[in-house]
Amino acid sequence: MTIYRFRNCTLMRNHALIIDDLWIRHGKIIDPEKIFFDEKIQANIEYDCQGVLIAPGYIDLQINGAFGHDFSSPNEVNENILIDVARKLTSHGVTAFLPTIVSSSIDTYKILLPKYKRQVGSAKDGATILGIHIEGPFLNEDKRGAHRTDFLRESPHGIEDLLSCYGSFDNVSIVTIAPEIPNMIENVIPILIEKYGLIVSIGHSMASLDIGERAICSGARFITHLFNAMLPFHHRDPGLVGLLTSHRLPATIVIHYGLIVDGIHTHSAAVRLAHRVHPQGLVLVTDAVPALGLPDGIYRMGADEIVVEKKRATIAGTQTLCGSIASLAECVQNMRQALLDGEINKSNEKKIFDDKDKNKFIVESIEAATVHPASVLHIENQKGTLSFGADADFILLDDKLNVLSTFIAGEQAWAVNDKWLINNLHIKSYQ
Amino acid sequence: MTIYRFRNCTLMRNHALIIDDLWIRHGKIIDPEKIFFDEKIQANIEYDCQGVLIAPGYIDLQINGAFGHDFSSPNEVNENILIDVARKLTSHGVTAFLPTIVSSSIDTYKILLPKYKRQVGSAKDGATILGIHIEGPFLNEDKRGAHRTDFLRESPHGIEDLLSCYGSFDNVSIVTIAPEIPNMIENVIPILIEKYGLIVSIGHSMASLDIGERAICSGARFITHLFNAMLPFHHRDPGLVGLLTSHRLPATIVIHYGLIVDGIHTHSAAVRLAHRVHPQGLVLVTDAVPALGLPDGIYRMGADEIVVEKKRATIAGTQTLCGSIASLAECVQNMRQALLDGEINKSNEKKIFDDKDKNKFIVESIEAATVHPASVLHIENQKGTLSFGADADFILLDDKLNVLSTFIAGEQAWAVNDKWLINNLHIKSYQ
Repeated sequence: MTIYRFRNCTLMRNHALIIDDLWIRHGKIIDPEKIFFDEKIQANIEYDCQGVLIAPGYIDLQINGAFGHDFSSPNEVNENILIDVARKLTSHGVTAFLPTIVSSSIDTYKILLPKYKRQVGSAKDGATILGIHIEGPFLNEDKRGAHRTDFLRESPHGIEDLLSCYGSFDNVSIVTIAPEIPNMIENVIPILIEKYGLIVSIGHSMASLDIGERAICSGARFITHLFNAMLPFHHRDPGLVGLLTSHRLPATIVIHYGLIVDGIHTHSAAVRLAHRVHPQGLVLVTDAVPALGLPDGIYRMGADEIVVEKKRATIAGTQTLCGSIASLAECVQNMRQALLDGEINKSNEKKIFDDKDKNKFIVESIEAATVHPASVLHIENQKGTLSFGADADFILLDDKLNVLSTFIAGEQAWAVNDKWLINNLHIKSYQ
Repeated sequence: MTIYRFRNCTLMRNHALIIDDLWIRHGKIIDPEKIFFDEKIQANIEYDCQGVLIAPGYIDLQINGAFGHDFSSPNEVNENILIDVARKLTSHGVTAFLPTIVSSSIDTYKILLPKYKRQVGSAKDGATILGIHIEGPFLNEDKRGAHRTDFLRESPHGIEDLLSCYGSFDNVSIVTIAPEIPNMIENVIPILIEKYGLIVSIGHSMASLDIGERAICSGARFITHLFNAMLPFHHRDPGLVGLLTSHRLPATIVIHYGLIVDGIHTHSAAVRLAHRVHPQGLVLVTDAVPALGLPDGIYRMGADEIVVEKKRATIAGTQTLCGSIASLAECVQNMRQALLDGEINKSNEKKIFDDKDKNKFIVESIEAATVHPASVLHIENQKGTLSFGADADFILLDDKLNVLSTFIAGEQAWAVNDKWLINNLHIKSYQ
């Protein structure tokens, strides 16, 4: 079995940037010391990474579409659009994602849910498909955001209503619900978790902090796009945002929350606030619409004509934003910049703002797109990490965190240009 | 000159709890080593503090009344009510305060402002009066809170409008204004600071973060009761709350903000959020109404009959809260409890929750009522500290942070019971 060694690089491993080599065999990251001592063998092929940073591949828990494809459109549906997106997302450093379906009709769920199957990623097929994220339709109308009112549903019969709506949970990994909908906390959430093995996220909700706490105690572990589509943080009832500083949750629970750091939807002061309050829970999501990844231009999407110009997607003829079109790689860059900027007004607290701080921000921003989303899905030992035994899904990044190349299961899936093609990094081979 | 030595105590000094003695001469805290080596003299009188904590006396930047007296009532006005409150506040550990006047008529300002003079505190006269805090009437009607609409004012002629409203700034230290009122940022704030030497606070405001940032750059340094009477923190425009994580402020500026931690007005999750985001700026204020310090009972106050029962003040016959009636000492205790409670859900981040953490919370809670408010007024070397050279305003606290005794200018102003009377702490005297 061929052993690959990536040399002359910095690795993001164990919450730090370290100078070390990355060793791969059979699509997994391996421990070179174990190889030397147990098996007495060496690398077969070595690559020179020219000093770049190697990080785990990015994982997007919430993406509604990209490259012109809308995951919620029953008209478009065929397995090929999913593969097309999975392949193209590698250019954003994404090596795994959850196609996300917004509130839809029962007929649409019947068409879509059976077709979006999980799929192991590869250089040929692109990013791993980790299952579907169904966002809605059991949401609070008062916080529906862009979800269509006529699709929203109640659950008077508890889990039965969800089953008759979705048909099956076979291909589903995450469900976003509003916890205040009757039966959710007592009945639905525990069954979704225990019987169907799903991750329950709460959002599009008017819930008070008290209801949020009960939903977490009932098993929910994720908050869908924090700040968006929920009550604002109020000093007498902090709502779902207050879960980040709640003291009424069991000590073993870590709450995670999605954050859209596209530079437009969430103010950088809000990014810093969430990060300072609960950095371990921060998960970058794109919440991207189908215009993600399209070059500037005018497109037809559903009933709308939209204009993509300078990283903004607007309804043609208006200034109305029609969703996030920042790549996950850009979100990581935006978060890092927000943290750097925040040091400016903290500089009188801390005299020295050195490389250690800068590295810390790089690590924290990348972790928000790697190990944190992996933790939400309980796959943090397999994905979102460069630890030994994990899948060899990784990316090469320059010092501005631009993605230079993406590898899936140890094979190169994408390179920004010829210089970063794997053959051009090759330095030597052994028998 | 008599030298007093307080022994067998823990001091809160230099952001830590340290075992040391407190030395006093002529109403100031002195450096004993300097005494020994330069002057070759010893203490004249020694006291045994029985192991308690000695902290700087508390400073309240915003208190509307107490013990039945309303600072904004022109009917009540005489110098004696201010002295009565100043004396009685020592039972709350308060050694300095700013009587605060809510939005009033011009006639009322003409009566009140000349009478509330600054006064150096003493055991006889009670807490130091640090000048008046005028809150209003240049506030935004949409965030007026309990301020009367008919008193609110605009400032079309800039500083002239403030002068004709207040008459004089002689006795004033802090002015709270809404920065979005025309002329404030460009004209009024700089003149209040440069010409009149005032501290400008912003609040009762609909200001966006951008306006808040401009107000700070214009010279404002304080935020009046954070979260209350301002836009809620929104992810696209974080409003004045966003100033805590703004990156568009000069690096040398530390923003301070008042927080009402009475256990009722501000949820403990909000206290933790503010503390985690910007601990150095947190200033505990009571924002107390005249019912502060009254025993349970029914009282007439202005046009209302109010009921004081179990630390809540309500309009008689209703559940409507009519202001904070927690003492500043209780606010310190509440903040410490909020921080302790918050460790519960952080325990998985940090394995060991030890005495060092607990001490840290004590220090941070006390500093929020001592050195932080002193810093707002630029008197942090004189008050709110036990550093050498500072005024000997200090309090004895038990391990639950209950106030046992209060000293002003080195003399005992109050003791909770006979045990803590100064004569009963006395151990020996030297010629």
